[in-house]
Amino acid sequence: MTDHTTAERPPLKVVLLGAGTVGQEVARLLVENGGDLAARAGAPLELVGVAVRDTAKVRPGIDPSLITDDALALVTRGDVDIVIEVMGGIEPARTLMLAAMSAGASVVTANKALLAEDGATLYMAAEANGVDLYYEASVAGAIPLLRPLRESLVGDNVRRVLGIVNGTTNFILTKMDEQGADYADVLAEAQALGFAEADPTADVEGFDSAAKAAILAGLAFHTRVTINDVHREGMTGVTAADIAAARDMGFVIKLLAVAELTDDEQGVVVRVHPAMVPRSHPLAAVREAFNAVFVEADSAGQVMFYGRGAGGAPTASAVLGDIVAVGRNRVSGRRGPGESTYADLEPRSIASAYTRYYVNLQVADRPGVLATIAQVFADNGVSIQVVRQDGSGDHASLLVRTHLATDEALQRTIDLLREAPSVRSVVGVMRVEGEAGP
Amino acid sequence: MTDHTTAERPPLKVVLLGAGTVGQEVARLLVENGGDLAARAGAPLELVGVAVRDTAKVRPGIDPSLITDDALALVTRGDVDIVIEVMGGIEPARTLMLAAMSAGASVVTANKALLAEDGATLYMAAEANGVDLYYEASVAGAIPLLRPLRESLVGDNVRRVLGIVNGTTNFILTKMDEQGADYADVLAEAQALGFAEADPTADVEGFDSAAKAAILAGLAFHTRVTINDVHREGMTGVTAADIAAARDMGFVIKLLAVAELTDDEQGVVVRVHPAMVPRSHPLAAVREAFNAVFVEADSAGQVMFYGRGAGGAPTASAVLGDIVAVGRNRVSGRRGPGESTYADLEPRSIASAYTRYYVNLQVADRPGVLATIAQVFADNGVSIQVVRQDGSGDHASLLVRTHLATDEALQRTIDLLREAPSVRSVVGVMRVEGEAGP
Repeated sequence: MTDHTTAERPPLKVVLLGAGTVGQEVARLLVENGGDLAARAGAPLELVGVAVRDTAKVRPGIDPSLITDDALALVTRGDVDIVIEVMGGIEPARTLMLAAMSAGASVVTANKALLAEDGATLYMAAEANGVDLYYEASVAGAIPLLRPLRESLVGDNVRRVLGIVNGTTNFILTKMDEQGADYADVLAEAQALGFAEADPTADVEGFDSAAKAAILAGLAFHTRVTINDVHREGMTGVTAADIAAARDMGFVIKLLAVAELTDDEQGVVVRVHPAMVPRSHPLAAVREAFNAVFVEADSAGQVMFYGRGAGGAPTASAVLGDIVAVGRNRVSGRRGPGESTYADLEPRSIASAYTRYYVNLQVADRPGVLATIAQVFADNGVSIQVVRQDGSGDHASLLVRTHLATDEALQRTIDLLREAPSVRSVVGVMRVEGEAGP
Repeated sequence: MTDHTTAERPPLKVVLLGAGTVGQEVARLLVENGGDLAARAGAPLELVGVAVRDTAKVRPGIDPSLITDDALALVTRGDVDIVIEVMGGIEPARTLMLAAMSAGASVVTANKALLAEDGATLYMAAEANGVDLYYEASVAGAIPLLRPLRESLVGDNVRRVLGIVNGTTNFILTKMDEQGADYADVLAEAQALGFAEADPTADVEGFDSAAKAAILAGLAFHTRVTINDVHREGMTGVTAADIAAARDMGFVIKLLAVAELTDDEQGVVVRVHPAMVPRSHPLAAVREAFNAVFVEADSAGQVMFYGRGAGGAPTASAVLGDIVAVGRNRVSGRRGPGESTYADLEPRSIASAYTRYYVNLQVADRPGVLATIAQVFADNGVSIQVVRQDGSGDHASLLVRTHLATDEALQRTIDLLREAPSVRSVVGVMRVEGEAGP
């Protein structure tokens, strides 16, 4: 930007859709840091309108004359350069973004749900209208993750993306682990502290992580992936007993998002589920509401990104980074990279993924029971890594950790164990991630 | 890239300057992953020449007909799109890159020494000729760090960059810490394993880290920073005793690169030196040849990047990412962001930086010595955080850890302590980083 006299350039007109926590922070920073942002974008950024649902509500720091409830009129007024969508949800967000792009505006959005459900429609509109669609804030808040994936690691072959991308569930699991507390108690604490919504479904049932996993998988593997392609299990079933058992074995339980290339390199499996992670693994040290994502690529090896994944300020940081990037593009008449789906891999079900299981069984305490159970594993092609027998009489338990096998074979094994006469009950089943070896 | 039929586009002509470890890996991957790279860049990438010093040497995987020792003729042949410079050093690298840009080629380089010494000349040439200058591989190998700084965090205000950016010294310090070994022994091991050069000066004296710190500081603070602005102390003076003492107090010693905004926000201090880091700090867990960099920004909070900072394959990953990005730009007739130096902060000396010291003193074991020494700290405005007295008689020692103070005040305190009658000797002095609080 050297020697650009940004003051001479006409301002870029910016409108904001949504003025919740993130929107208010973005509006505040656009004004407060206006000088820096102008110098970096190459032109002043002028906020010319803010669309909200309830115009009566007080929005601290936002000029009341900018506020309107007619979002469609705002995005189609014809002179808007950048539309910032931080209202969330599928509609009317999609309609507004499409209208904005048709009217020639570039779009910066944090809307992971919409991108994961129907990103293709948005990308096509961006392409058709020659505008930018940027969405760094949609995954892992302030952590630069999407741009590195689509621009820095674009010369490498990504094998796997593995991470903690939801702060709410990580906060809950951290507290459960550190306090030995139950899910319900910790959820109440998280809600009181503002780390969980009144209705926590999107977070605790894994929908939020699944949307982010779909976005990451699409970028990492140059393939169109939607949330419907993602295997999703929430973490509401994780008990204090599961966590204690994991701790006992040197593991911690995390809700993971995983996207990986299949062995034949023709498919991709994307999944979200709780998993046991060894305490020595860097992801085990990711506490409270922090996020971290590992990317494994052929040449780069393992690369990790870590930081705050949510909250008004971190999300605003990502949004403003995109605004500057899009602004620079408009000043110089260029566009950033569009959608890349050339690899067109097949989204496959978790059945074909290679995973390993931890299984906790209540068994009859009589000689030969281990042999019988080991045979069930063997019959399904599942190799046992560690087995531990505890207790006696009615409360004898068997803890089994397997080697890698297809998830299908592991699930079939569990189904057969549930029916095996020597098994009183299958007390716990959980996948294990982050271990080296077979 | 959807629906682009890259096969129809004429190939982008690529030349390689240097065919060492990184160059050979880049050449191999350009061919092996040609299909993927073409789809991502939007056009095939054709390697049309490789300049080396010694044409007689066998270069596995490189077509011998491409090899030449006339680098200047190669970069000025007129039809070259991208010049990849991985020969290193100031000259002839600079002359060749300038010639390449004058001839209309974009440049991808891993040359941290040249960028830190004279990046401005390269940037100006890129601007004047309307071409790209990309250099992700110059800092922290495969870890996407420069693009996130100059594009993702560009809407935020960076306060501080703090990291381990040299794999050789981190390998040596890790081994010294874990084996209790001396520098000389570990250096020999590192050299045998290929983690250290025969002449390790650039690494162990901090020149390599200082070059990277200058590059990071320039991007983070939108200011021109050269290696001459960097305060540099190597790690050859770190002894097994220093490391044992640090371990005793719950610290580990790392060679850190730090770039930070001054309190008045008008200056930037960039420094490389060994420092004690608390074992609970994420940087303490960065072992062996790995690199990690923290960025602290107003809105984003702390963001960390972690991965392999050196080696043929990780460096090649970063180079190829840049090649694809530059290739995309050329296909669509645009350029990436240029140099941003609008903030034009004043590079200041370490004297004005706020640091904290750990000091190990041999003192006379008599009543009142602690009071006398505490007075020296107080007289210089340095507040003591922890003090520990050990031993007695001739070997009485005093371990002092200070609160934050200007480096100038701390240095003055040390100078006065060296002359104080009750101090037999100043055995060890080291800065402490990564602690919260004053």
